[in-house]
Amino acid sequence: MKSQVDVRQRILAENESRAAGIRERFAAQGTLVLNLISSPGSGKTTLLEETVRGFAPRHRMGVLVGDVATERDAARLQALQIPAYQILTGGACHLDARQITAALERIDTDELDFLFIENVGNLICPTAYELGEDFKVALLSVAEGDDKPFKYPAIFSRARATVITKADLLAHTAFDMQAVREQIQSLQPEGALLVTSTREAPGIDAWLDFLSGALAAKREAAGG
Amino acid sequence: MKSQVDVRQRILAENESRAAGIRERFAAQGTLVLNLISSPGSGKTTLLEETVRGFAPRHRMGVLVGDVATERDAARLQALQIPAYQILTGGACHLDARQITAALERIDTDELDFLFIENVGNLICPTAYELGEDFKVALLSVAEGDDKPFKYPAIFSRARATVITKADLLAHTAFDMQAVREQIQSLQPEGALLVTSTREAPGIDAWLDFLSGALAAKREAAGG
Repeated sequence: MKSQVDVRQRILAENESRAAGIRERFAAQGTLVLNLISSPGSGKTTLLEETVRGFAPRHRMGVLVGDVATERDAARLQALQIPAYQILTGGACHLDARQITAALERIDTDELDFLFIENVGNLICPTAYELGEDFKVALLSVAEGDDKPFKYPAIFSRARATVITKADLLAHTAFDMQAVREQIQSLQPEGALLVTSTREAPGIDAWLDFLSGALAAKREAAGG
Repeated sequence: MKSQVDVRQRILAENESRAAGIRERFAAQGTLVLNLISSPGSGKTTLLEETVRGFAPRHRMGVLVGDVATERDAARLQALQIPAYQILTGGACHLDARQITAALERIDTDELDFLFIENVGNLICPTAYELGEDFKVALLSVAEGDDKPFKYPAIFSRARATVITKADLLAHTAFDMQAVREQIQSLQPEGALLVTSTREAPGIDAWLDFLSGALAAKREAAGG
């Protein structure tokens, strides 16, 4: 179906161009922009809640969050007194750069160290749409099983970091961490693998250190 | 973007027409066809493994399984000596009726009581594509959280049954079953809600009874 391919290529090209504008804007102000991608229920919002708590008052962060329906996730983040805005896709399975550009009119991002974009819960569709991020972060909950990187190679090969969430469930599931480590290593040899649980302490500090390091690297590269 | 809408409508119309052909074929032979839809890692394949074990030798079943990559799920089902065929979508986020028609050439479905179609792990995209099924079944793992029906209303309003999986994790997660029950009731008042765990016994028998009842109803409606 040639026309379907043509339409998709035009859409992706338009999206790239808008994403480049977003990237330029945040490069100029030294804000690190991350695109968080995972299945529904992997714990993206919960990880962000813990990130807000862990970073305050050291770093300022804002969040744009995408969902098919409900404003629940943005409300959870706004309750923590950070700028957060809900993008409702009305059925679409991923965010695009046009939606990000429009949403950026709705929150104040001038003084942010980090802008997190929490994509729609979906391991497939968000992968192809650049949103102006510095890099993608994939989340994988222990409850989802250890076979997912090879089943969804597009996202796990493009994510600079993979965050394993809900590690407190390791004792209650058959999840082979070494198998996941090997799949990630094969798909993205340069990628970081972080293991977190927000119901228990371990892991969040390593995630915060990873973020601080990436922010410092961006600012150093910009000569700031 | 008018052309994008046009292309999508044409694709959906072509898909409906193929799906009608599949539905007709399985109506004639009294095989119940189910389209299983969930997030990645909700336990679709594991539920099917337990369904094979629970039904043998009472009912014969076959499975078509869709994934972006890997033939792992079909291999797990073939190991149980049932006809199973892996459809690789090569990146596409859902199965379509054309893929089902082609896959049906690859396995023997003449004597089946049940044909299960395990869709690509995705709560959004598969919803719009009819595959010739009698009805859709949505799965939701306890680990995914209790806010999902209202966040993904399209699938939970169209599924005749919702299966809550990994109920053994209820003790280790903050999952409010009553909240899920109310969301499902609001989205699909006629829908069944089944709670299962394949690591513990309860729940699978109710699922098997639900399936047997649906098969009997289909055959009775056909005058068989």
